[in-house]
Amino acid sequence: MRLCSFSRDSRRHPGLVEGDHVVPLAAHDAIDIIRGADPVAGGDPIPLADVVLEAPVLPGNALAIGLNYRAHAAETGQQPPAEPVLFAKMRGTYNRPSGPVVHPEWTRRLDYEGELGVVIGATAHRVPVAQALEHVFGYTCVDDVSARDRQKAEPQWIRAKSGWGFMPMGPWITSADEAGDPQDMRIRTWVNGELRQDTNTSDMIFTVAELVSFASHVFPLEPGDVITTGTPSGVGVGMDPMRFLQPGDVVRVEISGLGAIEHAIVAP
Amino acid sequence: MRLCSFSRDSRRHPGLVEGDHVVPLAAHDAIDIIRGADPVAGGDPIPLADVVLEAPVLPGNALAIGLNYRAHAAETGQQPPAEPVLFAKMRGTYNRPSGPVVHPEWTRRLDYEGELGVVIGATAHRVPVAQALEHVFGYTCVDDVSARDRQKAEPQWIRAKSGWGFMPMGPWITSADEAGDPQDMRIRTWVNGELRQDTNTSDMIFTVAELVSFASHVFPLEPGDVITTGTPSGVGVGMDPMRFLQPGDVVRVEISGLGAIEHAIVAP
Repeated sequence: MRLCSFSRDSRRHPGLVEGDHVVPLAAHDAIDIIRGADPVAGGDPIPLADVVLEAPVLPGNALAIGLNYRAHAAETGQQPPAEPVLFAKMRGTYNRPSGPVVHPEWTRRLDYEGELGVVIGATAHRVPVAQALEHVFGYTCVDDVSARDRQKAEPQWIRAKSGWGFMPMGPWITSADEAGDPQDMRIRTWVNGELRQDTNTSDMIFTVAELVSFASHVFPLEPGDVITTGTPSGVGVGMDPMRFLQPGDVVRVEISGLGAIEHAIVAP
Repeated sequence: MRLCSFSRDSRRHPGLVEGDHVVPLAAHDAIDIIRGADPVAGGDPIPLADVVLEAPVLPGNALAIGLNYRAHAAETGQQPPAEPVLFAKMRGTYNRPSGPVVHPEWTRRLDYEGELGVVIGATAHRVPVAQALEHVFGYTCVDDVSARDRQKAEPQWIRAKSGWGFMPMGPWITSADEAGDPQDMRIRTWVNGELRQDTNTSDMIFTVAELVSFASHVFPLEPGDVITTGTPSGVGVGMDPMRFLQPGDVVRVEISGLGAIEHAIVAP
């Protein structure tokens, strides 16, 4: 299934995306479907063009991974880590697939990071790698927006990674049975139509299964939690000269089989 | 008011602590009271001794502050920071005031950090310092449990600070009108009855108002969010020789006017 959340009457509703329509679901929230409820239709299909898609789920925890593609580690001048580097995307980062992302006044080096997001479906606590994917509900596209000057200057990355709206995600969650192999997806990012990132998830240093297993040994991952799995090479800070996002820019992240998200950067 | 959450019939209920009793509230959850609902009684008082107190609120975001007391910065050999150092306590850390905290197998340097926790009452986005306290609902005791070896070895502090159950809090939230001046509270921590931390919150580098204002410029703070404001000197890693927590140890954090939390460390 392709599970989305959309807004109507100022509140979030869950839906199934079928072709170019959304079938509203009877469930209260997408998290109920992620936890295992049957996706029962609760209304007539609505054209996708007539709804605003919201973040498909509001995770209890969103974790992100630093340096999980070899070429990205190289472009930022760092060695691949021996273990996954986890950091937080706080709740204030959650954003629609269409954004926008407000350019904060406290950074001059705003950057994109197209990433594969993993949505947990069943509580995962201390699960071995071989069983980890059984705990995954599905996959989605994420832009792990980053303030590079803050990331470099500050020891912990809350401001660098958790600015308001710094996590556009969606457009929906494709369930694992339909998404295919998470280590064989093409991931591409464009800025203003210019292709900047184009990599296959086979280049990850730590696989999705390894990341879920590792994180599940820190604390229990719960249904709806999201792990965004690191960005490939091609970010703005890795270019020569470096190129950062400005108000008016448009970022598009597309992953094969999962659809695409596209959001603008806007002035404060 | 003293707002608590307690468990009965395998679910959380909100309550008001009055003397040595809890008055169950009609509200669904403590967050409703924090958002402004009247605390209407929904049952007969229950002796405190007959209930299990839970974390008084399950925050959407929990932020913690590194190095916010001058003497603690000194004991860890670091300069006081120019701006607050924010880091995350993930949802998996939330714990009862009575814990217990499971000693993970991936640390040999588990430590306590008695701290003043600030509970947000009204959305705070880009608020100036002078208005910041108007957005605070109340205060509570927190143990910001820390794995010092991971904190030192790993660039981001998820494992160091967000191990399972690493945030015992409570025993309740004392509303701001009853708690008194947050910059004049005595905060003490004991391990197995031995006093280890004994400081006044007047020694904070950044005041509660400054922390709320600063964090509110990163992303909007929402009702129920918690900022735990850093620990004073006297942690185990600052002792000579260093002393770390082991299964069987009992940590108690008490703050004047807010009550005390006390939890054991247990083997995995």
